[in-house]
Amino acid sequence: MKKGCPYGTHRVIEPKGVLPQPALKISNDMEIYDNEILIDVQTLNIDSASFTQIKEEANGDLEKIKEIMLNIVETKGKHQNPVTGSGGMLIGTVEQIGPAMEGKTNLKVGDKIATLVSLSLTPLRIDHIKEIRKDIDQVDIEGKAILFESGIYAVIPEDLPENLVLSVLDVAGAPAQTAKLVRPGHTVVIIGGTGKSGMLCLYEAKKRAGVTGKVICVDYSEKNLERAKSANLADAYIAADATDAVGLMEKIKAATNGEMADIVINCVNIPNTEMGSILSAKNDGLVYFFSMATSFTKASLGAEGVGQDTTMMMGNGYTKGHGEIALQIMRESEVLNRMYQELYA
Amino acid sequence: MKKGCPYGTHRVIEPKGVLPQPALKISNDMEIYDNEILIDVQTLNIDSASFTQIKEEANGDLEKIKEIMLNIVETKGKHQNPVTGSGGMLIGTVEQIGPAMEGKTNLKVGDKIATLVSLSLTPLRIDHIKEIRKDIDQVDIEGKAILFESGIYAVIPEDLPENLVLSVLDVAGAPAQTAKLVRPGHTVVIIGGTGKSGMLCLYEAKKRAGVTGKVICVDYSEKNLERAKSANLADAYIAADATDAVGLMEKIKAATNGEMADIVINCVNIPNTEMGSILSAKNDGLVYFFSMATSFTKASLGAEGVGQDTTMMMGNGYTKGHGEIALQIMRESEVLNRMYQELYA
Repeated sequence: MKKGCPYGTHRVIEPKGVLPQPALKISNDMEIYDNEILIDVQTLNIDSASFTQIKEEANGDLEKIKEIMLNIVETKGKHQNPVTGSGGMLIGTVEQIGPAMEGKTNLKVGDKIATLVSLSLTPLRIDHIKEIRKDIDQVDIEGKAILFESGIYAVIPEDLPENLVLSVLDVAGAPAQTAKLVRPGHTVVIIGGTGKSGMLCLYEAKKRAGVTGKVICVDYSEKNLERAKSANLADAYIAADATDAVGLMEKIKAATNGEMADIVINCVNIPNTEMGSILSAKNDGLVYFFSMATSFTKASLGAEGVGQDTTMMMGNGYTKGHGEIALQIMRESEVLNRMYQELYA
Repeated sequence: MKKGCPYGTHRVIEPKGVLPQPALKISNDMEIYDNEILIDVQTLNIDSASFTQIKEEANGDLEKIKEIMLNIVETKGKHQNPVTGSGGMLIGTVEQIGPAMEGKTNLKVGDKIATLVSLSLTPLRIDHIKEIRKDIDQVDIEGKAILFESGIYAVIPEDLPENLVLSVLDVAGAPAQTAKLVRPGHTVVIIGGTGKSGMLCLYEAKKRAGVTGKVICVDYSEKNLERAKSANLADAYIAADATDAVGLMEKIKAATNGEMADIVINCVNIPNTEMGSILSAKNDGLVYFFSMATSFTKASLGAEGVGQDTTMMMGNGYTKGHGEIALQIMRESEVLNRMYQELYA
């Protein structure tokens, strides 16, 4: 059996020397290397931006969608949308585990897992497309996929509905990072706190900051703020436009007696919220940017421009145990469990 | 006397509600608000990208350069290049200090300072352009400028040459942040370690990591690596292309007995070095991105894609005492002092 690189570079066909994600074509030969895991795929959960593009290109026609998807995988060896560059995730059953993975993984053959690495780097073979659920971006297939040694995954638990698990795992990084950063007594601001990742962050922040801390939920939508309030997710709720940096700062100042936040977590997917985030934090506070709309230079030069000694962290979708941390919220909080089933499952 | 906002928003003319940096036009009326500092300007140190653009537009003609510069300040109230968006810094003498700044600053009238906030947000009036030093982007003027309450600056010390001070202050954030992050025993990789900010980072990293640590200098240029070696700035020197992520990882692996780095500091101003930086760090290591060419999404999605639990920090050009930390290096290290005078002063 051939020895593989932990990052899957052994499967890159072109261009040589890059990692599987930026690669134009990778091998989807389903004979595994010694450190790979073979998955019998059940469902692809296509990235929302990618699936929207495919549906538009196909004018909503199911047969045409199938054709486009099969063509992507045929060309690239992975389901990476050539227009959006994005992938998605998959659910399937472990079929074979490379011998070099012994002692490195707790997985066993027959486990049902969701891969938490992007489809944009996952070797995939589609034998047959069985069903397309257009409204929730899910596609049931017959096919196989490969998980690299460095690939992350979560075992699907039996006590939670599968669709709920999928939608929570999709944003698992944010609450897990929140859990690791927030300490008792912290003042925490969550910008975009009423969204899918925001509410999970609120829950973890409140749990970790505790009775001596203060968790502030910021969102643009009054209606969504009411929803978060009804679930008692925060200590204060502020309706604000995060792109209005000074306006947001004034509101946070009023809500914190001028102290500002120890930690600001940005979960809002619109541009130009960097300065509002920085000015909401204490001079030596920390801002965690989860938003993919974050501009590196706007944050970096912006903090310098206002002389703030802010620690600015870039969101990492992965942290150890993030899947378990996020799923645990669905067990602990009845109200969030119900809300996420209604909204996202 | 009118009361000002710490961030200078009181001077924004258009559009209303934004901070001075993104503003199209700010007031350069030199009657100060209660929390402002008036500076009698001696020299503008125009940002290199900006000055290159101006020189090109003027075909190198001195009178035309003057005209372009005067026009920028006339239009915007600040020297923010409309093409590059960038500014620069200035040197001058403190002429007046607003009464609200009492107890908030150690400055006194007559102090010679360099402002460390960008000219792209600094109210400036140019009365007369005296001399243009085209090759080092410096312009001597008669004029005035305003420093906001949040504005950062450094007092020019008397024991170091002024041009040396300027060039070191220009990159002061990087070594100061390095000093704050590196602990005894750390393995530290500095990518782009032979550049202007890189060598200062090497010096601070070696000082803080100490005899139990290991500092590795990575650079593309063999010639520059020899120069760093001659100054004994690191414990190991590696010639590598940081855009070749896997290649760089293999070299760092060899240099660290497979342990990888606790801290990676990226000082290289070229794109696509995010993955190389991430893969050079331990799974739970820290990467500090100083490079303005850093892509937020490439770093963020890249770390997740390879399942690395990396802490990724965005470079903040300001941290408390950064000017003093950087200038102290020029006093402590005779060899760096000499080298920086030759190369950058």
